Amino acid sequence: MQHYFLHEHLKLNSNIVLPHEVAHHWISVVRAQLNDQAEFVDNKHQVYLGKLVQKDPESIVKIVKYLDVNTEMPVKVSIACGLPKKNKADLITQKAVEMGVFEIIFFKSQWSIAKWRGNRVNKKLKRLNKIAKSAAEQSHRNIIPKVEYIDSLTDLLKLNFDKRMVAYEESAKQGERTTLKMIMNQMKGDNTALTIFGPEGGISPSEIKQMISNGVAPIGLGPRILRTETAPLYLLAAFSTFFELKE
Amino acid sequence: MQHYFLHEHLKLNSNIVLPHEVAHHWISVVRAQLNDQAEFVDNKHQVYLGKLVQKDPESIVKIVKYLDVNTEMPVKVSIACGLPKKNKADLITQKAVEMGVFEIIFFKSQWSIAKWRGNRVNKKLKRLNKIAKSAAEQSHRNIIPKVEYIDSLTDLLKLNFDKRMVAYEESAKQGERTTLKMIMNQMKGDNTALTIFGPEGGISPSEIKQMISNGVAPIGLGPRILRTETAPLYLLAAFSTFFELKE
Repeated sequence: MQHYFLHEHLKLNSNIVLPHEVAHHWISVVRAQLNDQAEFVDNKHQVYLGKLVQKDPESIVKIVKYLDVNTEMPVKVSIACGLPKKNKADLITQKAVEMGVFEIIFFKSQWSIAKWRGNRVNKKLKRLNKIAKSAAEQSHRNIIPKVEYIDSLTDLLKLNFDKRMVAYEESAKQGERTTLKMIMNQMKGDNTALTIFGPEGGISPSEIKQMISNGVAPIGLGPRILRTETAPLYLLAAFSTFFELKE
Repeated sequence: MQHYFLHEHLKLNSNIVLPHEVAHHWISVVRAQLNDQAEFVDNKHQVYLGKLVQKDPESIVKIVKYLDVNTEMPVKVSIACGLPKKNKADLITQKAVEMGVFEIIFFKSQWSIAKWRGNRVNKKLKRLNKIAKSAAEQSHRNIIPKVEYIDSLTDLLKLNFDKRMVAYEESAKQGERTTLKMIMNQMKGDNTALTIFGPEGGISPSEIKQMISNGVAPIGLGPRILRTETAPLYLLAAFSTFFELKE
């Protein structure tokens, strides 16, 4: 079933006019017919079932049922990635949203080869936020995770989170295998966590020093070396396995 | 550090002539100099440190140290994916190898839109096994996972594994959250597991019926709907989190 985000507050049995973009996708691309149903998420992140009752001149949906579904992780997991090369930011964004990320931050790190200069930042963010929206629709999220850009590690470290970690290759190599689970064990519902990932070139010694002196915990993500775009997906799946799968 | 697979048995202090492909990559692409070191995995999956002692006319490496490293999961996790569209098989292969997969099988499933016909199978497998090898080098594996093709679900179900599961969207929707952890809890070192994933169109009712009657357990991978190429990565990260991270 299709799943769309609306910016308004929805009420049972009310009729709503679909925004052009949603109407276009559902009716022209997916070819919805009258009386077809889709899920609509309102501005309070509540999910309703809506039925197409009119196509032209405006597309109108009747809200027929409240769906008590929540596909969000109990803890809010943000990731911050050193600017990666090529289209890896696209891949990270799409997959991280499917995996349940709360918020994605790309930041300028010392060993990033990619640079987002001037108005490229806005163009990139527009594109990435569009990818995030599509992925949130596709994976049936209750929220659309935001994609943001931060110009320096110093500014990134000013943000508030309950827990902060950095996926550090050197920790992984030295066999660090306990910190992530220890931190997850300490977290409670609605807690926030930030995990920082380096770009292809990794995290520089001065960056790791700055992070550690700011209380960011280095973590290992298993014995294999993960690419810059794979590590965030491992982390998110680890959080989901820990918090969302039951024994 | 570079990491290469060799087909011979390595012994400490012996000199070996590098195969052309390895020599080309290490010396011409990475630009290794005399006395530079790299990791070499032998045909028994043991890892050694080797030092470049001659470049021309043959490239010769002296084996200088045995490295007691094992980056393989304690259990052997295979995945079988219904033929996906476009270059998704490439992405699944690369990322699954990084995530620690033991073996990757692509199989013809009822709702696959992609078809691998006749000699396309061999071409595809050659390409995918090359991707697997690169990813195994990059992620410092002890083995190169094999990529195979099976023509039907019936043949896939004839293969022997200690545990067999299928990632089933309907199970996920109905809130199935316990089977994967239950199965992982039952597994011991060196046990084998196969998890089956549908293509974009999903698994057909007759396929799921056939799997269940063959003792394959339907599992949910959390509350969000994962794309066909994302679900195997979630599964592998879940296995790694369970078996390789400690509390």
